[in-house]
Amino acid sequence: MTSFPLSRRLVSEALGASLLVTTVVGSGMMADRLTTDAALALLANTLPTGAILIVLIIVLGPISGAHFNPVVSLAFTLRRELTAMSALGYIVAQILGGIAGTFLAHAMFELPLLQASTTIRSGGAQWLAEVTATFGLVFVILAGRRFRTDAVSWLVGLYITAAYWFSASTSFANPAVAIARALTNTFAGIRPVDLPGFIVAEVLGALLAVLLVSWLLMEASDPQPLAETETAP
Amino acid sequence: MTSFPLSRRLVSEALGASLLVTTVVGSGMMADRLTTDAALALLANTLPTGAILIVLIIVLGPISGAHFNPVVSLAFTLRRELTAMSALGYIVAQILGGIAGTFLAHAMFELPLLQASTTIRSGGAQWLAEVTATFGLVFVILAGRRFRTDAVSWLVGLYITAAYWFSASTSFANPAVAIARALTNTFAGIRPVDLPGFIVAEVLGALLAVLLVSWLLMEASDPQPLAETETAP
Amino acid sequence: MTSFPLSRRLVSEALGASLLVTTVVGSGMMADRLTTDAALALLANTLPTGAILIVLIIVLGPISGAHFNPVVSLAFTLRRELTAMSALGYIVAQILGGIAGTFLAHAMFELPLLQASTTIRSGGAQWLAEVTATFGLVFVILAGRRFRTDAVSWLVGLYITAAYWFSASTSFANPAVAIARALTNTFAGIRPVDLPGFIVAEVLGALLAVLLVSWLLMEASDPQPLAETETAP
Amino acid sequence: MTSFPLSRRLVSEALGASLLVTTVVGSGMMADRLTTDAALALLANTLPTGAILIVLIIVLGPISGAHFNPVVSLAFTLRRELTAMSALGYIVAQILGGIAGTFLAHAMFELPLLQASTTIRSGGAQWLAEVTATFGLVFVILAGRRFRTDAVSWLVGLYITAAYWFSASTSFANPAVAIARALTNTFAGIRPVDLPGFIVAEVLGALLAVLLVSWLLMEASDPQPLAETETAP
Repeated sequence: MTSFPLSRRLVSEALGASLLVTTVVGSGMMADRLTTDAALALLANTLPTGAILIVLIIVLGPISGAHFNPVVSLAFTLRRELTAMSALGYIVAQILGGIAGTFLAHAMFELPLLQASTTIRSGGAQWLAEVTATFGLVFVILAGRRFRTDAVSWLVGLYITAAYWFSASTSFANPAVAIARALTNTFAGIRPVDLPGFIVAEVLGALLAVLLVSWLLMEASDPQPLAETETAP
Repeated sequence: MTSFPLSRRLVSEALGASLLVTTVVGSGMMADRLTTDAALALLANTLPTGAILIVLIIVLGPISGAHFNPVVSLAFTLRRELTAMSALGYIVAQILGGIAGTFLAHAMFELPLLQASTTIRSGGAQWLAEVTATFGLVFVILAGRRFRTDAVSWLVGLYITAAYWFSASTSFANPAVAIARALTNTFAGIRPVDLPGFIVAEVLGALLAVLLVSWLLMEASDPQPLAETETAP
Repeated sequence: MTSFPLSRRLVSEALGASLLVTTVVGSGMMADRLTTDAALALLANTLPTGAILIVLIIVLGPISGAHFNPVVSLAFTLRRELTAMSALGYIVAQILGGIAGTFLAHAMFELPLLQASTTIRSGGAQWLAEVTATFGLVFVILAGRRFRTDAVSWLVGLYITAAYWFSASTSFANPAVAIARALTNTFAGIRPVDLPGFIVAEVLGALLAVLLVSWLLMEASDPQPLAETETAP
Repeated sequence: MTSFPLSRRLVSEALGASLLVTTVVGSGMMADRLTTDAALALLANTLPTGAILIVLIIVLGPISGAHFNPVVSLAFTLRRELTAMSALGYIVAQILGGIAGTFLAHAMFELPLLQASTTIRSGGAQWLAEVTATFGLVFVILAGRRFRTDAVSWLVGLYITAAYWFSASTSFANPAVAIARALTNTFAGIRPVDLPGFIVAEVLGALLAVLLVSWLLMEASDPQPLAETETAP
């Protein structure tokens, strides 16, 4: 349970989402400029993303819980560890922070700030991939918090490293990041029109994870029924 | 020693084997689609596999021990830390979970669910590679549990990262995963007819590891003679 | 707070900066000789740099704090954890150590010791990238020390792994390293004439991080007001 | 201080050296077969080597100290933490284990067991690289043991990951591994006639590290004057 005032927690969520998106979008552009091999570009997109997630969860987790992701805030709200009002604030901060992250990446790489992606990411297989990837992410966070609180940052970073490659969608698994990625017509982009499908799939995956965890980790007396606890130590 | 009921432990084994196979098969397909360089494809297969192993062992270890591998369950049965009946249930769950993982990967990548591999993996050198790789895996798990219980997840993930490259067979080291990989005609596949050779080699490697550990780590009074303990914390 | 005499602390800072620069410059040359793919070369520059940072901060942190970076020493001086005189000594040691690191890399690769880079790195976008990268680095160090002292080495290594790719400048984020890199006309170089822009941007980024941390992590009673404490355990 | 009898400690050193060399030589062959890009091959040689070092030091460290390296045993003998007789046994076990590792790699990849390398690795720049790489390795082990005993495995794995790239010789840093690599005419080989230069350079680097550590970490009363202690926990 974090003791920081809401204003600073919201800044923490916005800052984290921003640096996360800057890394996803920026490393994608850097890789795209330096190579023609798409697998190498995805690898050069994967490793920085996994690394920055570990860093951001460790340094911002104690302030805001380090969600950086609306479906993670949703999961904690469903588990009564975050109030609906706080969750709403978190989600707005995550989306605004994510968009700022895209703008910052564009500015650093001398591209127009405002863009819209033309990369098609749609269809049942892509949505299944997003359900799977988000299910895994939320499951890992919830189970990790139960058994190894100090390892959640590593779990998330390593999980995303794997999910970038096992899911056919390269695992967005985050509606705020998806929105921010709709605003860049570069390596990491997604067409704005494809957002609703991704977001619905991500919410569905998160709900499945909450349900499975409720059954799989059920105990006589749940040790963590508190409000407003944090994702990472 | 885990306190979870057997039903949930079996779900844990099936879920873990499934996500492991989805990662092995899915990342192989992703890599194969994105590059023509076989070393880069294997690297893009290696890093996600190592990463997801660390994650799955940390989050599912406290429930079922996180074996995900029939020869690991066999080793624990030989060491009297798992009953033969539980081991049988574990192995069935691992095989069914693994097959489901292949189907999920195929669905995400829009391929026919049911396939049979045509990739030849046979002969004495390949079998020697599987004996070596599985010997190392089981040795690392058993010795790691003795000295650094909290590090077993990392030991397994890092060991497999190395074994993918030092063994000429790319280190299957797991009969359940081998069976699941026989059902995909993609990067990670193995001909069904080549399965028996691999499985015999894997069992042999595991037995050698159990024997060596029994002598090398022998003590006057063994500190962990309990039944049903877990692989990872 | 370190108990080592200043002479050994200065040797520690010089040694660390030297091995850091040897790694940055040497791995850049090695990669450049072995491949024509620029993304692969940057990856082969990134992983060794991240790895050596973790190592050097763990083994030298207890002696000198393992700054290896004038703006990190500046940040600790502003936070009254390092005296101005010590900071001056640190910065001189870092710069001399860094230059020695470039010479050592040249000698190992049979190149003329004394060189000047001709690689242009200038302009507003590059400076914005350096402000961002250095802001993130100093923020991560200061927040990491507060919440997870034992993880600072990993935070720095992982952060730089990400920043090499998300920042358009490949994240120098260190005036001593920048000066040393001006003296090599190889992969990692920067024109001497471009140094002032980078150094000003780096100082600015560090100041922004000190300001944000002061507000974001403000507490009624700050738990670490001591002089001369160290970056890493 | 390990309590295992000498016979098992020697088996531990031989086993560790063997799996280390199998990984170095095997991953080199695997990479060489799969790609024509030399940087990618070195990367695919680096990551498994770093990973297996971490694993082997954690699981065998409690038994024998996990030296796997004659100059590390030499350093501990000079620091009076290993008797000369034990050191001699260790070194013989390391060399025999290393050679067995090369044979195992050849057998797995269907190559003639007995080979001699024709890869030239000689000259002042290469020797300087070996002095530097071995100095760093021994320094990291000795300082790491003092400050973070539980992290020595990671320090060694990460250090070698960096040293493969910053040193022009790709950092052999180990006479037993060098001898074993002289017996393979594949990616990781070194001409037998070039061994003496490498071994002298490695011993010199180790001596420099022992001297520097003696001064840099000198204390009024040294906390670890015991005989026969171990490298890793």
